[in-house]
Amino acid sequence: MPSFNPPSRLLMGPGPSDVAPRVLQALARPTIGHLDPAFVAMMDDLKGLLRYAFRTENPLTVPVSAPGSAGMETCFVNLLEPGDKVIVCINGVFGGRMAENVRRIGAEAILVEDPWGKPVDLDKVRAAFAANSGVKALAFVHAETSTGVESDAQALCALAREFDALTIVDAVTSLGGIPLEVDQWGIDALYSGSQKCLSAPPGLSPISFSARAVDTLKARKSPVQSWFLDLSLVMNYWEGEGARSYHHTAPVNALYGLHESLVALQEEGLEQAWARHQANHVRLRDGLQGIGLELLVEERYRLPQLNTVVVPEGVDEAGVRKRMLGEHQIEIGAGLGSLAGKVWRIGLMGESSRPEKVDRCVMALTAVLGR
Amino acid sequence: MPSFNPPSRLLMGPGPSDVAPRVLQALARPTIGHLDPAFVAMMDDLKGLLRYAFRTENPLTVPVSAPGSAGMETCFVNLLEPGDKVIVCINGVFGGRMAENVRRIGAEAILVEDPWGKPVDLDKVRAAFAANSGVKALAFVHAETSTGVESDAQALCALAREFDALTIVDAVTSLGGIPLEVDQWGIDALYSGSQKCLSAPPGLSPISFSARAVDTLKARKSPVQSWFLDLSLVMNYWEGEGARSYHHTAPVNALYGLHESLVALQEEGLEQAWARHQANHVRLRDGLQGIGLELLVEERYRLPQLNTVVVPEGVDEAGVRKRMLGEHQIEIGAGLGSLAGKVWRIGLMGESSRPEKVDRCVMALTAVLGR
Repeated sequence: MPSFNPPSRLLMGPGPSDVAPRVLQALARPTIGHLDPAFVAMMDDLKGLLRYAFRTENPLTVPVSAPGSAGMETCFVNLLEPGDKVIVCINGVFGGRMAENVRRIGAEAILVEDPWGKPVDLDKVRAAFAANSGVKALAFVHAETSTGVESDAQALCALAREFDALTIVDAVTSLGGIPLEVDQWGIDALYSGSQKCLSAPPGLSPISFSARAVDTLKARKSPVQSWFLDLSLVMNYWEGEGARSYHHTAPVNALYGLHESLVALQEEGLEQAWARHQANHVRLRDGLQGIGLELLVEERYRLPQLNTVVVPEGVDEAGVRKRMLGEHQIEIGAGLGSLAGKVWRIGLMGESSRPEKVDRCVMALTAVLGR
Repeated sequence: MPSFNPPSRLLMGPGPSDVAPRVLQALARPTIGHLDPAFVAMMDDLKGLLRYAFRTENPLTVPVSAPGSAGMETCFVNLLEPGDKVIVCINGVFGGRMAENVRRIGAEAILVEDPWGKPVDLDKVRAAFAANSGVKALAFVHAETSTGVESDAQALCALAREFDALTIVDAVTSLGGIPLEVDQWGIDALYSGSQKCLSAPPGLSPISFSARAVDTLKARKSPVQSWFLDLSLVMNYWEGEGARSYHHTAPVNALYGLHESLVALQEEGLEQAWARHQANHVRLRDGLQGIGLELLVEERYRLPQLNTVVVPEGVDEAGVRKRMLGEHQIEIGAGLGSLAGKVWRIGLMGESSRPEKVDRCVMALTAVLGR
């Protein structure tokens, strides 16, 4: 069996995004022990960098040692117990996955559904709170990767606070790409992914829990159903002074990569990264309009880092993606669920959000579509 | 915040073990999409390589996208349902963790306990089967990383089969280091780790499920409590012809590393790797005896890849480890649980199982102990 040498690709899909050479180099540094004092110091730096990216002072801000789906599950299994009521907003794939997490805990998911391609409707959420007493948490997706829609996280958090409910927020695609203010908005628990706007390889899920969320965890009556994701155990490794107790073996080299990608983000500056994502979105939008392509989502709640492009009448959706990859080495994404076959998803996340990459993508689409 | 540059270390602890330069280089190859045809082909190769290492034909042989603890949880949450009875053998840290997994499912853990430093006692297991009807599974640790003891996996599997019970086996430290015959011994479900005798970085957990285990999964009455670890969903990504459905984003670069480590194992040959681990164990044992140090575990069930060394009377256990690391850049492990302060754990796993590394470790210990 030969070694694997991946082909050269430009990653313009819904993630993973392109990984910078400096991050790839960091991955290849020699593995050291997960209890090595040098590694423990790196973990402290990494937590500080994550707090910078999340705009939070939350002490419990760590990368879960698994992909974003595990970060999602971490938030739900630690905060919920059987019988709890949770309002779950569904306007794409990931809201549906949240509801599935709630059900597997034996908790009750009260669904607030909006069409794919639209944001979460605040009035419907208010009505759901009014119709159900004792709701423990409101769960929603800040940036829906399946549709390219941003929901108003700040307003949703304020609404939840009115009804004394916790907030659980999917920030997988928003972190590093658009404004996300964990402390200012009062988000209680959120999870993200390493492979979107942070441009590290997939496999890690940064999370952050507010003091209120930590209190909820500490007040649990039943044990967390997952041993691996039990934050009361994970905290003993990532927190505390002096000796860290062993929980699981941290993914050492993957954490080198995430650390390096966050150092790069801090060097650029978070606001500068947000502005770059917005500028390259405008460049893409203009380029697409120049060849007669339209975006699905209305401008006022459109994500700059995830663009859903309407497939023109009579065009072979899958065939175009195949030619983009085969002839131009560019990956763009397919639609999911009710948008399958109807849209392409062009991601401009992290290292993939560069003007020369936008131009290369538009030129390739122009050639493939014969425009 | 500066980039992180790890110090140079020789990893002779309980894992992670040293990672070969070729594996580190593989990690740094450009990230491609997790649905890219080239990546999907690599996944197929990787599954074949894992089947080679596990000595199995099981189609459901995949790496879980998280560390060994998550691999453990994958086996338990997929095979057990609330109320199921499981015999769990405890002769170290990891048997105890298995029991914790069983309880969090709402299943019943029937404990068979043996002293730390001894193998699982077959007579006690037989007695537990005789005393309890309707036991669904027998769970045990093949190679206890916390004590350095091998239990007789073949005999334990035969015993479970007599009572028509499934077997769930922890092979974290055994895979690649000592004989492990999944099909020949009739193991139903097992999990391992990337960072032990395979010498890839930590973060992935290869698992394999027999046909009987897959049937059990398919016959479940309740959903798997973890969405992330639900193998019926994971299989849709790792198996099947043509289109793979999206479950979670695979840890692309980490999988490059595991692939490369398995290519290296296949080049060496599995039996040759077992023989190398045994030969270097003998070299270490002789070297330690030469400076008056003794191993804790009796020779007949001693693991060659994980050596528990008795701390001599009057010697500062932690101080020796600190000097080994600070003065010699060598990591050795501490004892856990009832062995804390009483033993050191010297791992000779994968790339760390090389004669020159054994010699360097013995020489450093000689200097630190002043012998």
